Amino acid sequence: QGGICKGKEATMTAYRGMSRDELQVEYLARKRDFDTWKAKGLKLNMARGKPSPEQLALSLPMLDALGSDADLIAEDGTDARNYGCLQGLPEARRLMTALLDSPAENIVITGESSLNAEYDTLARYMLFGTDGCEPWSSLSQVKWLCPVPGYDRHFAMAAAFGMKLIPVEMTPEGPDMDRVEKLVADPAVKGIWCVPQYANPDGCTYSAEVVRRLATMTCAAPDFRILWDNAYAVHHLYTAPAAHVADIGAACEAAGNPRRYVKFASTSKITFPGAGLAALSGSAETAAEILGHMKYQTIGHDKLNQLRHVAFLKDAEGLTAHMHRLAGLIAPKFACVQEVLEAGLGDTGIATWTDPVGGYFVFFRSEPGCAKRIVELAGEAGVTLTPAGSTWPHGIDPHDADIRIAPTYPSLEELRDALEIFVVCVKLATCEKLLQLR
Amino acid sequence: QGGICKGKEATMTAYRGMSRDELQVEYLARKRDFDTWKAKGLKLNMARGKPSPEQLALSLPMLDALGSDADLIAEDGTDARNYGCLQGLPEARRLMTALLDSPAENIVITGESSLNAEYDTLARYMLFGTDGCEPWSSLSQVKWLCPVPGYDRHFAMAAAFGMKLIPVEMTPEGPDMDRVEKLVADPAVKGIWCVPQYANPDGCTYSAEVVRRLATMTCAAPDFRILWDNAYAVHHLYTAPAAHVADIGAACEAAGNPRRYVKFASTSKITFPGAGLAALSGSAETAAEILGHMKYQTIGHDKLNQLRHVAFLKDAEGLTAHMHRLAGLIAPKFACVQEVLEAGLGDTGIATWTDPVGGYFVFFRSEPGCAKRIVELAGEAGVTLTPAGSTWPHGIDPHDADIRIAPTYPSLEELRDALEIFVVCVKLATCEKLLQLR
Repeated sequence: QGGICKGKEATMTAYRGMSRDELQVEYLARKRDFDTWKAKGLKLNMARGKPSPEQLALSLPMLDALGSDADLIAEDGTDARNYGCLQGLPEARRLMTALLDSPAENIVITGESSLNAEYDTLARYMLFGTDGCEPWSSLSQVKWLCPVPGYDRHFAMAAAFGMKLIPVEMTPEGPDMDRVEKLVADPAVKGIWCVPQYANPDGCTYSAEVVRRLATMTCAAPDFRILWDNAYAVHHLYTAPAAHVADIGAACEAAGNPRRYVKFASTSKITFPGAGLAALSGSAETAAEILGHMKYQTIGHDKLNQLRHVAFLKDAEGLTAHMHRLAGLIAPKFACVQEVLEAGLGDTGIATWTDPVGGYFVFFRSEPGCAKRIVELAGEAGVTLTPAGSTWPHGIDPHDADIRIAPTYPSLEELRDALEIFVVCVKLATCEKLLQLR
Repeated sequence: QGGICKGKEATMTAYRGMSRDELQVEYLARKRDFDTWKAKGLKLNMARGKPSPEQLALSLPMLDALGSDADLIAEDGTDARNYGCLQGLPEARRLMTALLDSPAENIVITGESSLNAEYDTLARYMLFGTDGCEPWSSLSQVKWLCPVPGYDRHFAMAAAFGMKLIPVEMTPEGPDMDRVEKLVADPAVKGIWCVPQYANPDGCTYSAEVVRRLATMTCAAPDFRILWDNAYAVHHLYTAPAAHVADIGAACEAAGNPRRYVKFASTSKITFPGAGLAALSGSAETAAEILGHMKYQTIGHDKLNQLRHVAFLKDAEGLTAHMHRLAGLIAPKFACVQEVLEAGLGDTGIATWTDPVGGYFVFFRSEPGCAKRIVELAGEAGVTLTPAGSTWPHGIDPHDADIRIAPTYPSLEELRDALEIFVVCVKLATCEKLLQLR
């Protein structure tokens, strides 16, 4: 399901077959293309995985779903306008089962952002420990496994807590489990980031075997934690059979490691980013532990927004229908990426890229030593890309080859321009490299 | 301005003047009253400072203020539906200046709950320290000053972080500053909770002199912090001239201690608890330090709710008009408390209570050794009160005398019944005490 395996092999046949003179001609031609684009003075952005205004418009009716005449009493009798309900309204937790694959009683509504819930979870482990183990802040070092390519905000967050980030290569099946199993023999290794389905950025969905190995592996740290950020749980493009990653909760339970995981999800890329519904889940003990800390932090998160989401999305069926409508806007953009990259780079052999069936990103790999220059050139020509290296811990890509393409935000027309520019920049940067101009 | 000074002296003249026989008669009469009330099987709640349904109804139009046809582009061009704007929308920060007495550029919107912002602030100090000082979690002990009577959730939060809570008696002017100044000579004392206006529960507004002394006092800890929870900044009853506590920010700035304070406020008791707008402020350096941590925790809080509040409350003037409407519902309840307590206990000399001009509570002091019993008896008769002791750190009131009365939630009719029952319980418990029946 997606994964960098889907890209072409970076054999670089076409460019490598060129003589120095031919390369020089190619370089000058691409330089002309570049200057032509640059002269247009465009301002395009493929940097972040943001929904487009058209996507957001599909959720606007939610703002009417909870007017002053709405029934604001939740099904358990809670007045959603007033204080209370630390765990979240039952109907909101039930809605989130569709994203979390957990029973509603083990789900905790955490506010509007799953990133915030992940941060707070790590902060709690640092300050209080988990499952009776020592607070991580009292240890001389905490190490954290970071599948690469991965999500820059995950890496930055773990680094902000002072953790030592250990990159683990992604395979087409998920993180390289041979390496993970070796690394968790170190008791200082306390956990791993996982975006298990349509991963950011490589689109990979973990195989059932990877999920099983994560759940069953022997960890030296009794408080090893998998932070399972299923950010794209229902974010299918519907251009291929939808993925559904195996349930880490069931796998951990079966393995006798029920405390090993915490799942996270949100409606950020379903309704409104920053104004969505976020939730976490774990075993009953995990949920109770988290609520035991949360009760000092809040009396309860925004219940009106919970009711608003339930009124709008209704249930798993309503959610699926909404995701189909979103895919109707997103899938053509992903198709455009494939089309422009294939047309521009397909026969050059200087790049590989993914063709995901869900999520928000296309992952692009250039010749080593070219990514930073490509992003720099694109910037000069008016296209903002995610900074090169951002898919690696501390933003340092040892091969300087990985670029994350985020096609959802621009219009289809802008996207096409941005990709055309991108293709020119890839060629130009690669020529520079081969001609040793840099 | 409010404060326990406004209560009557607890001379206990009437009851103390009774012979044992007279007391026995009084006890039996009150016991009959109690049984009569108990037989009614009422279920009344004066436990928490919750807005009443009628108060909440006044904010219902806010739910219509941001429908699908609303302009969702903020004044700085931010699309409020999408990611971004870590600090909060400019118009939302400007609205919060009315609550925080800080310039909008030093205000950070923190989500929906000031309690959460306070928790996160302490968590950051524990994990990362502040102003270049060591993380508090690395110290052998952190001590925290707790003005008593005070807010139970404040105390519980500091205790949850493992802090040693040091009670400081409230005076009619604010915390006993002679004692505070002595205590802050201990470098382990890292801060103080302050609810500086219409304080929870005693209704006190700190005098300008107390604010000045807090700002200027010499603290052994360079990272001593005043957490200034101005929860009732605009929550006047309008039955007397409105209080306006002196600005701790200006005072700290003038004293050369600009980092000493963080202010907090929210619209929880203005619009909807748990679905309001919360914010903090400090010096420019404090705001920058907090944003520097927050950027790893969130991309930005709910901007639609920010716009919703601006559309509904508009500005300081709109806020004042709304607070007047709320006071129209709340003030009669506070008047009812005075009326029933005065009628029932005014000539007994067995209790004192406050007559606040703002905020959410009446603070009641019984004869020592009676509070728990009063709360217990009230519970038996169907009236839920805040647990006795909850205004003290760890819920332990050494005099067993303090009770917080929260009159806003019940209807006026229910409130009157609840207070009548309360009066009977006070008398009964005091008789028991004097007759040494307990």
